[in-house]
Amino acid sequence: MWNIGGKDDGMIPNERDAALRARAKQVVPGGMWGHQNAANLPEGYPQFFESARGCRIRDVNGREYVDLMCSFGPMVVGHQHPEVEEAARRQAERGDCQNGPGEVMVELAELMVDTVAHADWVQFQKNGTDATTVCVTIARAATGKRKVLVARGAYHGAAPWCTPYPAGVMTEDRAHLLHYDYNDVASLTAAVGQAEGDLAAIVVSAFRHDLAKTQELPTPEFARAARALCDATGAALILDDVRAGFRLHLGGSWEPVGVRPDLSAFSKAIANGHALAAATGNDRFREAATKVFTTGSFWTGAVAMAAAVATLKVMRREDAPARMEEAGTRFRQGMDALAAKYGVPIEQSGPVQMPMVLFTGDTEFRFANTFCVAALAEGGYFHPKHNMFLSTAHAPADIDAVLHAADAGFRAVAALG
Amino acid sequence: MWNIGGKDDGMIPNERDAALRARAKQVVPGGMWGHQNAANLPEGYPQFFESARGCRIRDVNGREYVDLMCSFGPMVVGHQHPEVEEAARRQAERGDCQNGPGEVMVELAELMVDTVAHADWVQFQKNGTDATTVCVTIARAATGKRKVLVARGAYHGAAPWCTPYPAGVMTEDRAHLLHYDYNDVASLTAAVGQAEGDLAAIVVSAFRHDLAKTQELPTPEFARAARALCDATGAALILDDVRAGFRLHLGGSWEPVGVRPDLSAFSKAIANGHALAAATGNDRFREAATKVFTTGSFWTGAVAMAAAVATLKVMRREDAPARMEEAGTRFRQGMDALAAKYGVPIEQSGPVQMPMVLFTGDTEFRFANTFCVAALAEGGYFHPKHNMFLSTAHAPADIDAVLHAADAGFRAVAALG
Repeated sequence: MWNIGGKDDGMIPNERDAALRARAKQVVPGGMWGHQNAANLPEGYPQFFESARGCRIRDVNGREYVDLMCSFGPMVVGHQHPEVEEAARRQAERGDCQNGPGEVMVELAELMVDTVAHADWVQFQKNGTDATTVCVTIARAATGKRKVLVARGAYHGAAPWCTPYPAGVMTEDRAHLLHYDYNDVASLTAAVGQAEGDLAAIVVSAFRHDLAKTQELPTPEFARAARALCDATGAALILDDVRAGFRLHLGGSWEPVGVRPDLSAFSKAIANGHALAAATGNDRFREAATKVFTTGSFWTGAVAMAAAVATLKVMRREDAPARMEEAGTRFRQGMDALAAKYGVPIEQSGPVQMPMVLFTGDTEFRFANTFCVAALAEGGYFHPKHNMFLSTAHAPADIDAVLHAADAGFRAVAALG
Repeated sequence: MWNIGGKDDGMIPNERDAALRARAKQVVPGGMWGHQNAANLPEGYPQFFESARGCRIRDVNGREYVDLMCSFGPMVVGHQHPEVEEAARRQAERGDCQNGPGEVMVELAELMVDTVAHADWVQFQKNGTDATTVCVTIARAATGKRKVLVARGAYHGAAPWCTPYPAGVMTEDRAHLLHYDYNDVASLTAAVGQAEGDLAAIVVSAFRHDLAKTQELPTPEFARAARALCDATGAALILDDVRAGFRLHLGGSWEPVGVRPDLSAFSKAIANGHALAAATGNDRFREAATKVFTTGSFWTGAVAMAAAVATLKVMRREDAPARMEEAGTRFRQGMDALAAKYGVPIEQSGPVQMPMVLFTGDTEFRFANTFCVAALAEGGYFHPKHNMFLSTAHAPADIDAVLHAADAGFRAVAALG
């Protein structure tokens, strides 16, 4: 059942996916919204998925892939992880969305505070955008100040204050945002100056993981400067760990660089695909966090919290970041070898657990698209522009299967001449 | 196991709940956030819940209640509804959060468009606040205008633009909000005038369901005026049906009054407690909806969508609003009889499916708190200030059990003298 590159046995290629897209177009604007809209991918990608196990996914046409996107991050210990799903199932049999949280909220909050180095407390939400918005709001409530610094091109969510596209957004939604360049201490210092004493927060991504760009880990100089500027001004250092959280370091993605934030936003990997987000903070921001009114109908849902407890326990027991680093190193080395074999220069950047592959000089993504479509046909689900994600379910044999698909991708790129 | 008013068998009253609250206080600011914070309820209410079946809930102390809050709305066909949970389980065994939606997204979108009278399309999210925010953003994108009218005191979510409490909120977050009084055509017309040709939307609640206030169904004059003002100005009429959706009318809560919105926000009851929200719209707003970038890591999660399909099918088959109206009428009549029996005047307002009980002259909520604590001890979970919610799981015997608890509540209020 879970063999890679399964054929669709006489079915017209993509028939089921195409039929669903046609139906979706009638009842969903454009057929799909947001980051999972397959209209933004080259032809050949499926829009709809049938099922998933471990690091393998199956589309509605019955084609199977080793997946390098992990649902754009949430899947961190593998789809259908038995411990996670058993915990979710057990909780679901008792209660999920009730008149208040279950006991599991306390267990999860304690586990988060024990796991995340800077955290004295935590609040839970449902979206990464909820968590980043809550952090910014708490920073403003605590400091009584307004300006928030964000890196140019960084993604912090899809609410009007942060969505990367302007439709429906007003000037006032970003009235108090100021911009700096990631890893550029001079631009950060200049932006703090621009805030003119009205600085509430500096928001930093775990690393520079902008779409379609070379990824950059934070330099120690940049991280220390951000911390020092916050300390000097009383502003909050907010780490947006939504995308990278629990893949680089379980204690928070800036632990390796030795700098601790005041507030962090987590989501994606926290519950292995169950909808959950979290804002963590230190004691300096605890009182402000009690004053900000933020809530949602499902935010105390006990099933996602039970899944998160199980996910965190598995990740801690298995040292998940180290396992993903092994898989990522195998992938990166294999990709470099294939690039050399075919004489196709690539640039791999960012942490190996979250692979980013760009083809040198490929400004129009012609090479990337060709590569991805060819790899897809051989059972490897890559993304041409977005950073990818590994999980602890990516065993060496899975990486080798991905590299087998990548071989076809490189061959296709080389054939472009 | 599910008997009402179960005793805690030698356990110190509230021991487990109190212990969890003490632990929570260490790791969650104030021990809890938002609308489910039991610190806002009289002493005696539990914060933490152990399990739930049908319309009955059990707290962590082992006490059982017939519930009138339905998780503040989400529970609409009863906790652990076999069809809903079976659908969720079957989907969970295949896949939930994947690289794109499952086929179930199309099925759900078609079902929503078929069910909701004004809807030509739908987009899905996770929070009610997501859905109201998406509607407002689409309205602005479509009209190229900025002003949004909301009723004074209405709740539309907990993001900075709409949260009812000011901590961390800036003037700019509400720069283009204008206010009117619900059901007051003159104030609505005046607010449209204030918008000075820059009107993007009029937002209306399904009915006036403000906290701690007399509830009011929309008058036909008000509803028709809102529609006419939008038609005259090109603004969007946005119905916030997050709280009331699927309880008053499956086609949308303004169907009984005969006025259709352009955009609607749904959440709460849509998937019987599984985290989901939806923005629906007519074709005039379809193109704008394709341009607004709004997304979330879990928004295509297939399990909540499978639960929503099952919930909608059950609600349609059973004519859920009519069943809740029967239960609500039995409750309202019973409460009036008890009020008369004890000579304690009350005011019941709003739709019977979403009961609101206020004690006459009880400005400090002394009567309401006394009533609720006494009813709680007899196995009836009321709320002293918030509208309550019925479900199709509230059978006549359950309403009678609630009224038995209410009898104790009225007796306690009468004893206050």
